[in-house]
Amino acid sequence: MARHRFLCPLRWGDMDTYGHVNNVMFVRYLEEARVDLFDRLGRDGTWDMLDTGCLVRSHAITYRRPLAHRTAPVPIDVWVTRVGAAAFDLAYEIHDGDGAVYATAETTLVPYDFAAERPRRLTDDEKRRLAALRDEAKS
Amino acid sequence: MARHRFLCPLRWGDMDTYGHVNNVMFVRYLEEARVDLFDRLGRDGTWDMLDTGCLVRSHAITYRRPLAHRTAPVPIDVWVTRVGAAAFDLAYEIHDGDGAVYATAETTLVPYDFAAERPRRLTDDEKRRLAALRDEAKS
Amino acid sequence: MARHRFLCPLRWGDMDTYGHVNNVMFVRYLEEARVDLFDRLGRDGTWDMLDTGCLVRSHAITYRRPLAHRTAPVPIDVWVTRVGAAAFDLAYEIHDGDGAVYATAETTLVPYDFAAERPRRLTDDEKRRLAALRDEAKS
Amino acid sequence: MARHRFLCPLRWGDMDTYGHVNNVMFVRYLEEARVDLFDRLGRDGTWDMLDTGCLVRSHAITYRRPLAHRTAPVPIDVWVTRVGAAAFDLAYEIHDGDGAVYATAETTLVPYDFAAERPRRLTDDEKRRLAALRDEAKS
Repeated sequence: MARHRFLCPLRWGDMDTYGHVNNVMFVRYLEEARVDLFDRLGRDGTWDMLDTGCLVRSHAITYRRPLAHRTAPVPIDVWVTRVGAAAFDLAYEIHDGDGAVYATAETTLVPYDFAAERPRRLTDDEKRRLAALRDEAKS
Repeated sequence: MARHRFLCPLRWGDMDTYGHVNNVMFVRYLEEARVDLFDRLGRDGTWDMLDTGCLVRSHAITYRRPLAHRTAPVPIDVWVTRVGAAAFDLAYEIHDGDGAVYATAETTLVPYDFAAERPRRLTDDEKRRLAALRDEAKS
Repeated sequence: MARHRFLCPLRWGDMDTYGHVNNVMFVRYLEEARVDLFDRLGRDGTWDMLDTGCLVRSHAITYRRPLAHRTAPVPIDVWVTRVGAAAFDLAYEIHDGDGAVYATAETTLVPYDFAAERPRRLTDDEKRRLAALRDEAKS
Repeated sequence: MARHRFLCPLRWGDMDTYGHVNNVMFVRYLEEARVDLFDRLGRDGTWDMLDTGCLVRSHAITYRRPLAHRTAPVPIDVWVTRVGAAAFDLAYEIHDGDGAVYATAETTLVPYDFAAERPRRLTDDEKRRLAALRDEAKS
């Protein structure tokens, strides 16, 4: 595995008064792609990053073409571009599966110890797992 | 005028299950700050950018500290950092008025001709007005 | 056909700080179920209610048990309970497919002429189509 | 005190593609009015209903006229219409201060013991406080 593909359902209410999906909702879609990624990674029961917690440190998103509402979900590819000591980066591509790209984005995430209320370092196991999601060709 | 300050009301429902304002809602707050800025600029009736339309080309946002829900609004400062031929940049600071900064962000906006369905160039009048909002000290 | 079943995807961000899907989001789910219903009804190209427009006149919703976030969609059954001269009623059941009901609701909808900016009467064709969605056993 | 008035700020993004405030957002505004009411009631430090918790049992809302986006907040009046053994009802009127009513609504709330994960009865003190918010003329 390198890239993870999430099929993101849209909602009619995601449109704004201009009749296209509002720019804020794209950031919501990134959240859904992350949750889906972490959910799949955690299915063997040995990955606890979502339980331990993770904070968004930053987002950068570029909108490339307007997205109209549709009942079919929109594919979002997500992959790892950097694994640091106490942070990691995800990249995303929101597209239509036929080459048309609606948006590209990057998020820096920080593992967070909610009990102690402070950021923490990545464990070696976490680094190994995240490295397996790294897409060399795109990073 | 250089910086524009918008007092952004929070909503209880902006919190996510972690008990803090969700990262996506900060991007909604940026939208509110832009709408408030354009609303004030347009009160003399000679500025029609919001009518003509404007698309978000990109956002970059960095989260600096968690924001708990509160009934008092959160100040957002917004100012212009760049005026190009067919795009301009806004910068924002979401803070508490006492030096604590919750997030900083930057947005590139593109004036858009909705009738013709394509981006357009800024007029000289628009450039002049945006330049007046430029905060040299911060850009 | 009598009842229409929509499989409603949840989003992680639909949860509020109590860790369950927020009550407001259930009303959003009702909207998604209506849009899906009208989309299916309109696929033969002869039904134009969504184009012509339709306003919500009222909602009544009863919450029966808390709904935790999950990646599997939640089934929503929707059917017609009344067809009047200038309004019709939909009923919904948000459930888990195994007998557990999360919420039941009813919405009164009014066909609306957006060009003339006023409500309008249902046509005979619309009444016939809506009547076919009527679930006698439940209304 | 009988009725409590909350000045509800709108957001540009509350509009849907029809250019009016979406019906779902009205239910969000009801939540804001409740939070504001409970916040004021709790300022003497002796009222702990929001800490203890409270679940929405049902909503009924009727939409009376479309609400366009505006920068001025929309007044919402909220008052108590019934105090039962283990539930109470609130009524709301979303209006413009000049007699035009956008929506009226009613919510049944159930005090909930989140530690024990079950509904609980209202205490005598809670009943007394809620009764003071009862608006006889309107209930």
